[in-house]
Amino acid sequence: MTGIDWVGVDWGTSNVRAWGLASDGRVSAEAASDKGMSKLDRAGFEPALLDLIGDWLPHGRQTPVVACGMVGARQGWLEVPYRDTPCSPVAADGAGHPKARDPRLLVSIVPGLRQIDPTPDVMRGEETQIAGLLSQDPGFEGVVCLPGTHTKWVRIAAGEIIFFQTFMTGELFDLIGTHSVLRHSLDGTGREDGEFMNSVEAMMAAPETLAARLFSIRAEALVSGLAPAAARSRLSGLLIGAELAAARAHWRGREVVIVGASQQAELYAKALSSLGAKVRSVDATKVTLAGLKSAHEQISR
Amino acid sequence: MTGIDWVGVDWGTSNVRAWGLASDGRVSAEAASDKGMSKLDRAGFEPALLDLIGDWLPHGRQTPVVACGMVGARQGWLEVPYRDTPCSPVAADGAGHPKARDPRLLVSIVPGLRQIDPTPDVMRGEETQIAGLLSQDPGFEGVVCLPGTHTKWVRIAAGEIIFFQTFMTGELFDLIGTHSVLRHSLDGTGREDGEFMNSVEAMMAAPETLAARLFSIRAEALVSGLAPAAARSRLSGLLIGAELAAARAHWRGREVVIVGASQQAELYAKALSSLGAKVRSVDATKVTLAGLKSAHEQISR
Repeated sequence: MTGIDWVGVDWGTSNVRAWGLASDGRVSAEAASDKGMSKLDRAGFEPALLDLIGDWLPHGRQTPVVACGMVGARQGWLEVPYRDTPCSPVAADGAGHPKARDPRLLVSIVPGLRQIDPTPDVMRGEETQIAGLLSQDPGFEGVVCLPGTHTKWVRIAAGEIIFFQTFMTGELFDLIGTHSVLRHSLDGTGREDGEFMNSVEAMMAAPETLAARLFSIRAEALVSGLAPAAARSRLSGLLIGAELAAARAHWRGREVVIVGASQQAELYAKALSSLGAKVRSVDATKVTLAGLKSAHEQISR
Repeated sequence: MTGIDWVGVDWGTSNVRAWGLASDGRVSAEAASDKGMSKLDRAGFEPALLDLIGDWLPHGRQTPVVACGMVGARQGWLEVPYRDTPCSPVAADGAGHPKARDPRLLVSIVPGLRQIDPTPDVMRGEETQIAGLLSQDPGFEGVVCLPGTHTKWVRIAAGEIIFFQTFMTGELFDLIGTHSVLRHSLDGTGREDGEFMNSVEAMMAAPETLAARLFSIRAEALVSGLAPAAARSRLSGLLIGAELAAARAHWRGREVVIVGASQQAELYAKALSSLGAKVRSVDATKVTLAGLKSAHEQISR
């Protein structure tokens, strides 16, 4: 394996992905594993990284590795202090440099961001995707929605992140679907878009009814045979609808850029379009790579 | 062990409790285990019951056992069809009679209740507590709140349950506290009543903000060191507050009877009192026993 100039790594809670980049910017190698931050102790990060990219690294010199995400959290490889908003998504300063035993590794970790006012919030990883979005579209101003386990809404102006807000919607869906009494009513696959949109609209109209409507999924399955696909769509409609009701100020009458093409991102796009927002979707992998490239250029400058 | 006329059993999802009743109505024996419905297959119920009460049963005759709760669910000892509301909480008809191998057992299971209109809902066990409440206070009309894993609100008029509604508040608290990213911020014990009431009031004023406020517990722990006791109280304030916002029509300007003296029941009482409802608490064990007695009298009549 030759021609790798540097390595970009997206290291999240559950998974890790790495790309080997040539000097012309092209991806010449790619690898992934399930060794996310939550499965590793501090000493486990370097071996997990070498499992993925060890074969890519030439001997006799250091290869820069630029990583973003939960790898920089307190439970990560090295706790990298947050940068404070409002600020540009990535910058030359503040990167963390965990010491590696392998002399071929020169690792930098992109700092996450912290918001103190008006509401406390944190992100690790999404700042790099925002940097990628801005490097592809330097004048961008507006609202970005990044669906995920913890969905982020990010407001951008003059090249800076000026406000962001996190919702646990994805995690709640997984918890309720896996562990709660509703799991008995959700088994299987498929979805019903009519149920989804009805639930989104019910939450927009009466968000205070969420707590009651959750159990009614189970009750309707028992009482009137609500089918699993309908039940799943109703649950995601209730949770995404509750989020959109709370996030209304971010998207109402605006264009929203949605990062990702997962089924979850599609549901956000469908709901937002139907509620009158203008939606544009961008590829998550592309903006992550572009953001890691932007971070690499700034850190190694 | 002599003098036991019949046995009452409260058999829930997680636990089972049994009382041996003398002919004068006094409790002359008591036993409990963690062999709830969720830990047993169909063949496991009789052995689990005999473990608890086998020593109480005289030979040579059948002792009536009256059980309420999830023991009558599809995953229980015998699926007992629901009775439909509006109806009296328990009645002579409809009890289930699982066949026992031990000739000393004559088991009856109190049917749960089903509501089709205006919203589908189900209960198994709470109907017996309501029957106990009515046997102690026959003319009671009004609203009963039964805090639990699945909190129930029940409207009673003319001796009948005319409407009920279930909230998954307790289960959500346990799921979020045990499995979600917030668990890192909730460790420990203690509570802060100011945080609790602030969160209840925030939910009453703006219930649509629930989805955003949940993650802010984690963010504030990271950003500004929110203490675990405050974080726990905030989480229960948000979830109970969201429920009270959705259940407002049940308690506003009314007296609410709260069944139970658990810490959770105390929080409901504190929140409801502070929001202007008149609260009266009754002992859960007492009304369960009174309800089982009422069921026994009706079934064996």
